[in-house]
Amino acid sequence: MKAAIYRNGDLVVDTMPEPVPQVGQALVKTLACGICGSDLHAARHAHRMVAVTKRIPGRVPMDLSRDIVFGHEFCCEVLDYGPKTEKKLKAGTRVCAMPVMLEADGPKGVGYSNTYVGGYAERMLLAAPMLLEVPNGLPTEHAALTEPLAVGVHAVEKAMLQGDETPLVVGCGPVGLAVIAALKLKDIRPIVAADFSPKRRELAARMGADMVIDPAAEDPYARLAPGKRAAIFECVGVPGLIQQTFEKAPRDARIVVVGVCMEPDAIEPMFGIVKELSVQFVLGYMPEEFARSLRLLADGAVDAPSLITGKVGLDGVKAAFEELGNPERHTKILVEPWR
Amino acid sequence: MKAAIYRNGDLVVDTMPEPVPQVGQALVKTLACGICGSDLHAARHAHRMVAVTKRIPGRVPMDLSRDIVFGHEFCCEVLDYGPKTEKKLKAGTRVCAMPVMLEADGPKGVGYSNTYVGGYAERMLLAAPMLLEVPNGLPTEHAALTEPLAVGVHAVEKAMLQGDETPLVVGCGPVGLAVIAALKLKDIRPIVAADFSPKRRELAARMGADMVIDPAAEDPYARLAPGKRAAIFECVGVPGLIQQTFEKAPRDARIVVVGVCMEPDAIEPMFGIVKELSVQFVLGYMPEEFARSLRLLADGAVDAPSLITGKVGLDGVKAAFEELGNPERHTKILVEPWR
Repeated sequence: MKAAIYRNGDLVVDTMPEPVPQVGQALVKTLACGICGSDLHAARHAHRMVAVTKRIPGRVPMDLSRDIVFGHEFCCEVLDYGPKTEKKLKAGTRVCAMPVMLEADGPKGVGYSNTYVGGYAERMLLAAPMLLEVPNGLPTEHAALTEPLAVGVHAVEKAMLQGDETPLVVGCGPVGLAVIAALKLKDIRPIVAADFSPKRRELAARMGADMVIDPAAEDPYARLAPGKRAAIFECVGVPGLIQQTFEKAPRDARIVVVGVCMEPDAIEPMFGIVKELSVQFVLGYMPEEFARSLRLLADGAVDAPSLITGKVGLDGVKAAFEELGNPERHTKILVEPWR
Repeated sequence: MKAAIYRNGDLVVDTMPEPVPQVGQALVKTLACGICGSDLHAARHAHRMVAVTKRIPGRVPMDLSRDIVFGHEFCCEVLDYGPKTEKKLKAGTRVCAMPVMLEADGPKGVGYSNTYVGGYAERMLLAAPMLLEVPNGLPTEHAALTEPLAVGVHAVEKAMLQGDETPLVVGCGPVGLAVIAALKLKDIRPIVAADFSPKRRELAARMGADMVIDPAAEDPYARLAPGKRAAIFECVGVPGLIQQTFEKAPRDARIVVVGVCMEPDAIEPMFGIVKELSVQFVLGYMPEEFARSLRLLADGAVDAPSLITGKVGLDGVKAAFEELGNPERHTKILVEPWR
């Protein structure tokens, strides 16, 4: 089959062996797979990602000398199942699933793995028990947004808000936009959102932000409602951002770190101490949150179409990785490997 | 009056003007005042402390070109009151109070201030509404431990524990010991405590730790009860410690930063992200927690006598600052300015 392969630090389209489903696995055709900021980061800083992963017990780092196929935001079509596997959903059914394979010694990721190809391939394997049917009427391209929406839903859940907080979303890329959508769904408002990009600010408003601020022109922290506890969602994920929230946050603020910063970072604990800040790091989502996100998209509760700014075949993946650097042009590009 | 004064980077005993109580203030005689680790830090890194304080809105930095008298862990005796001030407790009454003066534009600290001398002076001013009577029978030297105990009580409150966590206290100086005492009082056990010093480990056991670990010989994190959420109290406060907890903490751990690190610090957010860690910075205490700490000492609920390892007059303050560097010899030294 064909795939866009991360090989020797480059993205190349090539053929690779057909995946063969084992016990408990489904073989699926990839219909659409979003390109995630983490994929861009992995492509640029793969060695750093491997170095950090090696130091975290229980994590299997990628072997960069071997082929890797990224892609973990997918909507697929069931083709077949492995032996002795319950055929829960019949062939032809459209499905979403968490990008996780269930192995005897624990879950294994899909998409940053030498074993399990991600969605930038014509076909892939999924854990059969994880398959969720895409409801009738939900377009495939919107279903592919289940995974990034779940990131926002989870971040807001982990924030453990009481509902009377004043939220600020710093950075309105796909992660920040998903957080805004999740805050709006929980009616935690008014939502302040900040991004340097006019296009991203426009999307933030469309996703539910009540005040969208250009930090170059105005201090977004000044818009937090006084007398309420601030809930700050850091959705940028580059060094320096955590310290910036430490310096800007009001006393007793809740900081939720949703942006994935893979570099070492510098903080001044004194700012956290003096203001008694609370920091919750988050990653991924729970199965219930993932399933809920799919339902929210099916119910039209989130303006999914606004987020999709492009679609490419496997041949277009490399160029798409480059174009995603421009926030004015792109938010979410979907890869359609069958094109 | 006489005081041990921080002047030109040194501690000198000299006379200074008698404090005169204003409206709402009480004049008190200092009976005993503990030397806090923060005082040692302030003496060593005063310029750094000033530089950080300047960057925090609402904080008044010390002017190092003028005299400062440290000391914020005190037990005093009421001498007199300012004009138009309710004489809540009569002269001769022993009192404790939060080291905070109430001014029109907000609270001001006692002890790191050019305006309000701390407890290393024969007499000082306190906010009259803050005075708490020391219960009969509670020795003055134990009452002086109210402030450091309140730090531990507050840290455990801010941790928002459910009671089924597995706690680890990293560092068993006065702050760590107070945290251990507070955990024991809330019956959040078994308590694991770690310190390189044999003497500090002995005190940790006496304060209520169930397992005391020498980190040079054994990994304290290995003693956390499996299947329970870890609550890690970082009570050291030097650069590198937060990252150490990030690397060692189990998934979903609650980290409470009680140690006051005034230096810039380096972290790798990826460890926090992958394990979805939660970090609560804490400082000080609430008035209720301070009052409760005094009652706990009066009730004999905390083994206060074990913590006091020395007493000095004003002439002994400078040497005491040096001796407190040795954890085998000293935990808490009290200054008795009347000696």
